[in-house]
Amino acid sequence: MTNPASVDNITLFVALICVCIVIGHLLVENKWTNESTTPLFLGLCSGVVILLSSGGTNSRIFEFDEQLFFIYLLPPIIFNAGCKVFNRNAEYWLFGDQGLSRYAVHPCIAIDPPVFQLEQFFRLQILYTPCSILFGEGVVNDATSVVLFHAIQKYDLSDINVKTAFQFGGTFLFLFTTSTLLGVSVGLLSAFIMKKLHPGRHSSDREMALMILMAYLSYMMAELFDLSGILTAFFCGLVMSHYAWHSMTDGSKVATRHAFATFSFICEICIFLYVGMDALDLEKWNFVSSCPAKSVGMSALLLGLVLIGRASFVFPLSFISNLTKKSTSYKLNLKQQVIIWWAGLMRGVVSMTLAYNQFTRFGHTQQQANAIILTSTMTVVLFSTMVFGLMTKPLVRLLMPPPILNRNVLSSEPSSPNTLPLLHSSQDPESDTEHEDIHRSASLSRILSTTSNTIHRYWRKYDDRYMRPLFGGREVVHPVPASSTNNDSQ
Amino acid sequence: MTNPASVDNITLFVALICVCIVIGHLLVENKWTNESTTPLFLGLCSGVVILLSSGGTNSRIFEFDEQLFFIYLLPPIIFNAGCKVFNRNAEYWLFGDQGLSRYAVHPCIAIDPPVFQLEQFFRLQILYTPCSILFGEGVVNDATSVVLFHAIQKYDLSDINVKTAFQFGGTFLFLFTTSTLLGVSVGLLSAFIMKKLHPGRHSSDREMALMILMAYLSYMMAELFDLSGILTAFFCGLVMSHYAWHSMTDGSKVATRHAFATFSFICEICIFLYVGMDALDLEKWNFVSSCPAKSVGMSALLLGLVLIGRASFVFPLSFISNLTKKSTSYKLNLKQQVIIWWAGLMRGVVSMTLAYNQFTRFGHTQQQANAIILTSTMTVVLFSTMVFGLMTKPLVRLLMPPPILNRNVLSSEPSSPNTLPLLHSSQDPESDTEHEDIHRSASLSRILSTTSNTIHRYWRKYDDRYMRPLFGGREVVHPVPASSTNNDSQ
Repeated sequence: MTNPASVDNITLFVALICVCIVIGHLLVENKWTNESTTPLFLGLCSGVVILLSSGGTNSRIFEFDEQLFFIYLLPPIIFNAGCKVFNRNAEYWLFGDQGLSRYAVHPCIAIDPPVFQLEQFFRLQILYTPCSILFGEGVVNDATSVVLFHAIQKYDLSDINVKTAFQFGGTFLFLFTTSTLLGVSVGLLSAFIMKKLHPGRHSSDREMALMILMAYLSYMMAELFDLSGILTAFFCGLVMSHYAWHSMTDGSKVATRHAFATFSFICEICIFLYVGMDALDLEKWNFVSSCPAKSVGMSALLLGLVLIGRASFVFPLSFISNLTKKSTSYKLNLKQQVIIWWAGLMRGVVSMTLAYNQFTRFGHTQQQANAIILTSTMTVVLFSTMVFGLMTKPLVRLLMPPPILNRNVLSSEPSSPNTLPLLHSSQDPESDTEHEDIHRSASLSRILSTTSNTIHRYWRKYDDRYMRPLFGGREVVHPVPASSTNNDSQ
Repeated sequence: MTNPASVDNITLFVALICVCIVIGHLLVENKWTNESTTPLFLGLCSGVVILLSSGGTNSRIFEFDEQLFFIYLLPPIIFNAGCKVFNRNAEYWLFGDQGLSRYAVHPCIAIDPPVFQLEQFFRLQILYTPCSILFGEGVVNDATSVVLFHAIQKYDLSDINVKTAFQFGGTFLFLFTTSTLLGVSVGLLSAFIMKKLHPGRHSSDREMALMILMAYLSYMMAELFDLSGILTAFFCGLVMSHYAWHSMTDGSKVATRHAFATFSFICEICIFLYVGMDALDLEKWNFVSSCPAKSVGMSALLLGLVLIGRASFVFPLSFISNLTKKSTSYKLNLKQQVIIWWAGLMRGVVSMTLAYNQFTRFGHTQQQANAIILTSTMTVVLFSTMVFGLMTKPLVRLLMPPPILNRNVLSSEPSSPNTLPLLHSSQDPESDTEHEDIHRSASLSRILSTTSNTIHRYWRKYDDRYMRPLFGGREVVHPVPASSTNNDSQ
């Protein structure tokens, strides 16, 4: 009926994903592992089996297909990342003030598996806020790095001068701006359609399908115009969850959020499984084995750059953030800064797909240099995910005071799942000046929030007066605490 | 980044699906159209545009890819069909006794678009029950026809005798039984995992992902073993929604149901859009134009066979069904029988995919006979969907008495969204003997229900005593009317 080879492969791969999910569930109580470790490890195991059964010629169930990765697997992950920035807000709104602010292990948290484990540490042991910082900058970093990567591809790096550096800057800004604008436009268009037509009135499938397809369309349009699909999908997700999501029926709201998160989850497992299997591909390692020093050097260099690169902005930004805080209890101490630095060291899906896309053809390469870059990237991903990932819990335990002490800190901050400034603004549109000290916590977003205070106030007024009536947005339906959302419908 | 040609095509295709959804929504108030008409018509329009812009060489955005159809688009449709049999029950349970039984246009109905329009006629104008009959036999028919088709492919039809006829019967029974058993087994395995491990405890993504992937795995395994994936996925969906679905967290329940329905909806639109575009493929029509009489004859023959085939079991079965009814108010009158006959005449997705798969290679054929069968199938699908579909509303108006009269009939039947016997049994497990007259309505399922009464009672006892404790199942959480579900947890 269908091509037997591909049916074989897909069946085996789907079965492996199922096994991953079950093992991942069984290991979840053991917080030493994280979501990415299981598929990576299972991928490695399957790689060994395939390698042995194929007599050392192959270690993968199927070949790398950039179309599969970039057209089907990556968009849900990126779009979901954009949505999550506001979903956090949505949870807050749906489940009321009590769920998140009391830092209880609330079921609504369960929809966020990629950062779930990490978040749990933070929620239980230190401030909630650092997770929001980690999360917020994680997705923006991914998107920005992809745009940088796109921009730099257009230049010959062996002949770089001031002029090409300026040109590169211009290309970067152009790509960043146009990709963002495209994402925002498609997001607003979908919000407008949802607000004016209310497709959910007749069929909730229709509104969910429209949300999914418009998001996907934004990504594909960006790819079509040679922009950054990742940045576009991210901002489309952001705008959709700020406007369009609120025009949906209640059932669809829950369903859309879950569906996006689930598909992102499945796609991430797929990519990690593939990376695990591909890590045993002898073809690449054969190239590398002829110059082991170069390969080890490259891996160490990349790992070092990751460590230094992250340190070079986490610590200075934390310092600036601390300067703006009046109370010491809101300041990020060195231990917290180390945790924030550490938690962003794990490289994953986006790094690997970029490496595959740039340095291989259908997962194969015949050039030594490409093979070395690819195997080094793989080493960094495997090492950072498995070693750094496993070390996170002991590190948090080592650096942070026992939970009982921190619970007191937590209880002094009743209602601030503080994420990005835009989110923060949508949560308490008018009250930030009056309740500033209560509503702000020690977070990287605070410095942004403080410096752009006036801009935000104008943006909120503009949003409430012009954007929300046109594109929809959060309305207060359930009774919520007076301090957070009752001014929203003004 | 990705193959530009495919990005073009996918972007255009996704944009077309979005347009379809918006137009479909705008046309929904106009009940002359149905869900399939919009994509078919839009596909035809796009076909004209592509045909003109390509100078008559091509009418499609992309070529038919059997892998795309059979591995990605068909499984969600079939699996959702299996789920819907119980989802109806789920809605009943979630929204209480009032929603469906009062036959109001309740929002919970909105999750069922493929039969939504038709259902609305029936709900508003005649009995609710005939829809359940239509729906129930629709999916079983599809699955059975696929198995028959599979079985008959193995025989040389030019040399048929008693022995091969028996062999054919044996093959059919073998395929039917093994496919069903595989679906049931995978469904039970997923239910067992969900019941024992409760993956939703830590992450609702994990349980949703597991449901989706296990369902997909059942389909792929059936294809791998040369069984009928359609039948397997249907029964897997049926078992999952009877057992596994109830072990999920509340949010995931809603989300899974919506996600399955939405993906089924999107896949259906994809296939209809493709069929609309492919209907203008000149390659096939060139073969046909050399023998127009043969082609017209074939189309007429197929259409005639559809009409006769459906009549030959709707009317006799209705007759038998009526024989078992004591009260005339429960009997299906001739007009209702005509509606049931009529509503099943529309051919769609499954017919087209089978024709493409058997008679083309990537959507192309060089044999006249194949081209004729394909164009005739297409004619039947287009004609039945568009002409029969558009005639449904006038026909129902013509044959059925005005709504006011029927509302009285409806109000005498307070609580029976009567679907398949298994569903019916799960709804009122012990009460059917006491409340028989209230709970049974004039339906085809009644004859099954009546004749297999004893078997059902034993099955229910077995289900409650052995299956549900092991695989999970509906528990009574909300207060429900005494007559329907309070004995359920025994």
